[in-house]
Amino acid sequence: MTTSLPSFSALGLHRVLDPPGVLPQAAWRLDASPVIAPDEVLVRVDRLNLDAASYRQLRETYAGDPDKIRAAVLDIIATRGKMQNPVTGSGGMLTGTVEQAGPDSPLGLAPGQRIATLVSLTLTPLVITDSLYRWDGQSEQVPCEGQAVLFARSIAAVLPDDLPIPLTLAVMDVCGAPALTRRLIRPGATALVIGAAGKSGSLSAVAARRAGAAKVIGVVPTEAEAALLHDSEGLVDEIVVADARDPVGLAARTQAAGGPADVTVVCVDVAGCEGGAILSTAQGGTVIFFSMATSFSAAALGAEGMAADVTMLIGNGYVPGHAELALDLLRTTPALRALFERRVER
Amino acid sequence: MTTSLPSFSALGLHRVLDPPGVLPQAAWRLDASPVIAPDEVLVRVDRLNLDAASYRQLRETYAGDPDKIRAAVLDIIATRGKMQNPVTGSGGMLTGTVEQAGPDSPLGLAPGQRIATLVSLTLTPLVITDSLYRWDGQSEQVPCEGQAVLFARSIAAVLPDDLPIPLTLAVMDVCGAPALTRRLIRPGATALVIGAAGKSGSLSAVAARRAGAAKVIGVVPTEAEAALLHDSEGLVDEIVVADARDPVGLAARTQAAGGPADVTVVCVDVAGCEGGAILSTAQGGTVIFFSMATSFSAAALGAEGMAADVTMLIGNGYVPGHAELALDLLRTTPALRALFERRVER
Repeated sequence: MTTSLPSFSALGLHRVLDPPGVLPQAAWRLDASPVIAPDEVLVRVDRLNLDAASYRQLRETYAGDPDKIRAAVLDIIATRGKMQNPVTGSGGMLTGTVEQAGPDSPLGLAPGQRIATLVSLTLTPLVITDSLYRWDGQSEQVPCEGQAVLFARSIAAVLPDDLPIPLTLAVMDVCGAPALTRRLIRPGATALVIGAAGKSGSLSAVAARRAGAAKVIGVVPTEAEAALLHDSEGLVDEIVVADARDPVGLAARTQAAGGPADVTVVCVDVAGCEGGAILSTAQGGTVIFFSMATSFSAAALGAEGMAADVTMLIGNGYVPGHAELALDLLRTTPALRALFERRVER
Repeated sequence: MTTSLPSFSALGLHRVLDPPGVLPQAAWRLDASPVIAPDEVLVRVDRLNLDAASYRQLRETYAGDPDKIRAAVLDIIATRGKMQNPVTGSGGMLTGTVEQAGPDSPLGLAPGQRIATLVSLTLTPLVITDSLYRWDGQSEQVPCEGQAVLFARSIAAVLPDDLPIPLTLAVMDVCGAPALTRRLIRPGATALVIGAAGKSGSLSAVAARRAGAAKVIGVVPTEAEAALLHDSEGLVDEIVVADARDPVGLAARTQAAGGPADVTVVCVDVAGCEGGAILSTAQGGTVIFFSMATSFSAAALGAEGMAADVTMLIGNGYVPGHAELALDLLRTTPALRALFERRVER
């Protein structure tokens, strides 16, 4: 199954100015020239969605002063050729319209399409041309004019006409989880979703059922979340209220609800859930960790300490077709859409 | 494929005294009584092998004073019912002889067998009966007399007669890596082992070949390590000298050596190897991270940033039959045995 390595230009290495030879995400400065290579795509940007940590740092540093925040963001982008906050290291994503698609671009995009980028701003060449005059600096949503470049290995999704953009972006933000869940569920399997009332969790629960899971057990931390899930008829078969940081309690309640699981999906951004996920999974089963709070060593040592023969996956946010799958799940599952609409409104 | 959850006594919960309800590893204090349950095994201990970080902390705290170090270890074991350094949190392993095997124990052990535990001392009930008088406190090897208890879900391996014990223990210490590698390699695959001249790396390289890999590429950081690997004829097909923390450099050299890989095994305990491993792996391929220096978020975000559709596994130190497999690889591969003997002598 060996394929060839992507060309380094596909990863954008030709746009790295400083230091030379590193990947665009690790670079201090990119060449953001809007003259594209044959495998690139040029996007007319209309909005940046700054990473929450980045925006918070800027707001706190400049005490909420809109002019200073605007000036800081403009300076970062002009200096670095990308929007990567030098303090937090984080970026965000953008929306815009395809202006030009190089003849060798594999992304399948055409001029005029409205898109969102699913790779980080930390590796996306970017120029701002309107001085951000329309941004009040009071939120991480930055209306703007400018140009961005997508590489052959960038990821972008066409924004559908039939869904509100905030809802679409909320789905796209977590679309890796349902895609990987679908890939790992075998028909007849028991699935356990930790954090099943959340965005990635509810999508993963629906993906598990579509993939043929015989039973989907959803774990939530509180009765309020349980009520939310209970109202969302059909998303899960069993609702377990448990503290996912308590391995024994979680495993016992999962067992009582029809577990252990063949596939467990961890979707809560809380530290210390590794042991409970492992202990609630059957020997020979699989745990997918989608939480950025996952500790690599806690997972590795926890499984060994319990003699647990479980396959443990680092949730990869990229699976081909992930955005389309997640949007399709939302469109065709009214309870899921209702749950998302409540979450996006908040 | 759903099986039932292990009983909580199989995990040793009945021996947890404080705080109640947690797993033995998380407990402050265990009941180390040598009266065993029907599914337990009693071991006559002859040696503790303290975790390196734990021993270093003790030695530094007590300025190398043998009496104080001995007293500290005795106090920890008497207080906690297990050898878990309260500062480092780490334990180690032990060797001993099976004294009594409960009728319901699934471990397949019989009285008189010489064994090593492959689960941590941090969860193993332990009593010391000789005041550690034979230990000089000058190394992490602690000759002793005492008793330890194995649970149904503990892991222990019988020490073979035909291999020196230090060599056997060195192999058992890393035996999860070759077992998981063997499970993931498909015949004809290209395998990349990062850290191929090390203990887990060389075992994984041999396991990959035995599983039918068409090509095994070994990465080492220096020419000296390359020479070591070169002397170990047949362990790998291609030797790549590269800094695994440089994604572009590693991927380019891997490509030149016949990559990218279908399965990449990361066996170097150095931070920052995630990007290189991902970039050196083909789309649809798998990366197994066996390094405790792996960053969960660097792996997850790195794969997404490169639009890399790779399956990323957290290396689980436990795979059924792992010790036997690794010892068999050592016995039947003279070059591997020679490499290990050089490493153990150091």
